[in-house]
Amino acid sequence: MQSLRVELGERAYPIHVGAGILDDSSLYAAELVAGRAAIVTNTVVAPLYLERMRRALAAAKIDVVEIVIADGEQAKDWRTLDGVFDALVAARCDRQTPIIALGGGVVGDLAGFAAAVYQRGVPFVQVPTTLLAQVDSSVGGKTALNHTRGKNMIGAFYQPLLVVSDVATLATLPPRELRAGLAEVIKHGFALDGAFAEWIEANIERLVGGDADALAHAVRRSCELKAAVVAEDERESGRRAVLNFGHTFAHAIETGMGYGKWLHGEAVAAGMVMAAELSARAGLIDERDVQRVRELISRAGLPVAGPAELRLERYLELMAVDKKVAHGQVRFVLLDHIGGAVLCADPGQRLVREAITAAAAAAAATH
Amino acid sequence: MQSLRVELGERAYPIHVGAGILDDSSLYAAELVAGRAAIVTNTVVAPLYLERMRRALAAAKIDVVEIVIADGEQAKDWRTLDGVFDALVAARCDRQTPIIALGGGVVGDLAGFAAAVYQRGVPFVQVPTTLLAQVDSSVGGKTALNHTRGKNMIGAFYQPLLVVSDVATLATLPPRELRAGLAEVIKHGFALDGAFAEWIEANIERLVGGDADALAHAVRRSCELKAAVVAEDERESGRRAVLNFGHTFAHAIETGMGYGKWLHGEAVAAGMVMAAELSARAGLIDERDVQRVRELISRAGLPVAGPAELRLERYLELMAVDKKVAHGQVRFVLLDHIGGAVLCADPGQRLVREAITAAAAAAAATH
Repeated sequence: MQSLRVELGERAYPIHVGAGILDDSSLYAAELVAGRAAIVTNTVVAPLYLERMRRALAAAKIDVVEIVIADGEQAKDWRTLDGVFDALVAARCDRQTPIIALGGGVVGDLAGFAAAVYQRGVPFVQVPTTLLAQVDSSVGGKTALNHTRGKNMIGAFYQPLLVVSDVATLATLPPRELRAGLAEVIKHGFALDGAFAEWIEANIERLVGGDADALAHAVRRSCELKAAVVAEDERESGRRAVLNFGHTFAHAIETGMGYGKWLHGEAVAAGMVMAAELSARAGLIDERDVQRVRELISRAGLPVAGPAELRLERYLELMAVDKKVAHGQVRFVLLDHIGGAVLCADPGQRLVREAITAAAAAAAATH
Repeated sequence: MQSLRVELGERAYPIHVGAGILDDSSLYAAELVAGRAAIVTNTVVAPLYLERMRRALAAAKIDVVEIVIADGEQAKDWRTLDGVFDALVAARCDRQTPIIALGGGVVGDLAGFAAAVYQRGVPFVQVPTTLLAQVDSSVGGKTALNHTRGKNMIGAFYQPLLVVSDVATLATLPPRELRAGLAEVIKHGFALDGAFAEWIEANIERLVGGDADALAHAVRRSCELKAAVVAEDERESGRRAVLNFGHTFAHAIETGMGYGKWLHGEAVAAGMVMAAELSARAGLIDERDVQRVRELISRAGLPVAGPAELRLERYLELMAVDKKVAHGQVRFVLLDHIGGAVLCADPGQRLVREAITAAAAAAAATH
């Protein structure tokens, strides 16, 4: 098992990463007071891991209130949250009762938001069971609900007390979701750490194949890198935006296709290639660097261009809407070099057009 | 105008208190960036003050998005909050757009919670227009929603950027609500500051009569006293509980009668007399002190005993439920002396019975 600490002053917390650690009761006993805890999970994860978690907590003298929500993004709404509150009230959970999120991003976002606002905040523990949740949402304290008029429109920054990332749970993850999670791992390498990017290049087949040691290293290093950025800028007012490498284009893809058609990681993968093309056109990196980005993403089994049906003009339209919503604050994250992302307010529309076109053309050429 | 600062580190903020300061645009210009702001208010307050606020903000180059909710406690629910989110999204309010609460406790709680969670937190400004909101909810950062199964069950600790308490708005407040607000002022005197208790005793007729200077002093001193307690214990884990002087009994009255029959301040008033009786029975204060508490509350036009129809056994029942919900953590706040409240885990059921009975008997004797 490997452990790291997210340094956020009085809100600092440990992340433990390893294979088969989900039911290591000592991890929970170290951070939670004996008594009770509520586990929020979903109908897919519950049959796989709920009973093991329950036994581990029982060994730490913690009784469990089980709250099972529906699977899928549509569960991230007020109605589901209200059902969680009903269950918490019915079980007389109070301000000392921790809420444990057992599952992927949706469970983590929803249970985290429940923990942030139930009785004005209760202790929160994350046990992420998808790669995306382990490398991304377990660091940074973002919790959220969707609103009918916007994804993640409601939420809170709320830090967990403890994160337990068991990479053995990734064995039950559909391969497509594992690859989508790898997109964020790759992002951490390219945007933040050249040596890590090289390590991923050397180990991408092990990662795609589900090798537990490789995954544990990828999760730990991703968390370390993200944690360092978050520690600098907890509430995302500046520096933290570098974590959005690839996301400006990805957001256009997700909105343009309708949420859910492309997995977030898939959109980010294609977005990173476009951002790399843009970085080269802005004179920051050279064509070989772009090629490295494209190649690694391709080897991870991820898309290196957006969906063919999404036309250039539609990208520009969608990015203009984003920009308007943000009062002109949409920024591109470019690569200054492999491992070093920088913010760029406006690289100019001509270069953005060229970057999108170039990514599509290169992808078409290899088919 | 008098100003004070609530010292909460990076979340410190100023409170301005005065008569007619609601539309002093310099107060807003000093804290808000020019641009836009959303004002949340209700159908009662909007006709009285919304246009003045709008003009004051326009003078500070801030355009206003107006959001008017229904009046009353039942507006403090998810449905109303969702309507606020709809309006914010429709007006393209972003993470930089402040939300201003213009109104009493319900508006402040709801708008504050909206500010805490819309896009994971936007700037929040309070312009309280009831005495209760000016002396109580403007300090401490508590925001809340009611849940079908419990009052204030959902919420967040979220500090405002600025509070503007215009005591001239209290002239439009129903006298019963002014008196209910005075209960919290009196509480601050008895629980926290003997000299302030004496000042209230000397000025209670001016306060009940709506004298602006007296009210401004009462609001400022109440905020100062509460701010000092909150600064010590922002998230209510210990010391802050002394602010609940009178509240253990008050909660039983409010629940026993059904919320809304008695105003919160009225229940707190009667609860303070019971808590004083209990303090005397616990050997902390003498009968003359109890008499001072009873007399001041009576002079404020507030009840010195609970409702006749609420029987002794019902109080004990309701307090036992509270205690069970809080895993035995219901505590009584007693007076060690006038101006000095202390926490007491369990004074014993016999004394609690005697205190409730004594308050009722004394009230009956004076009728």
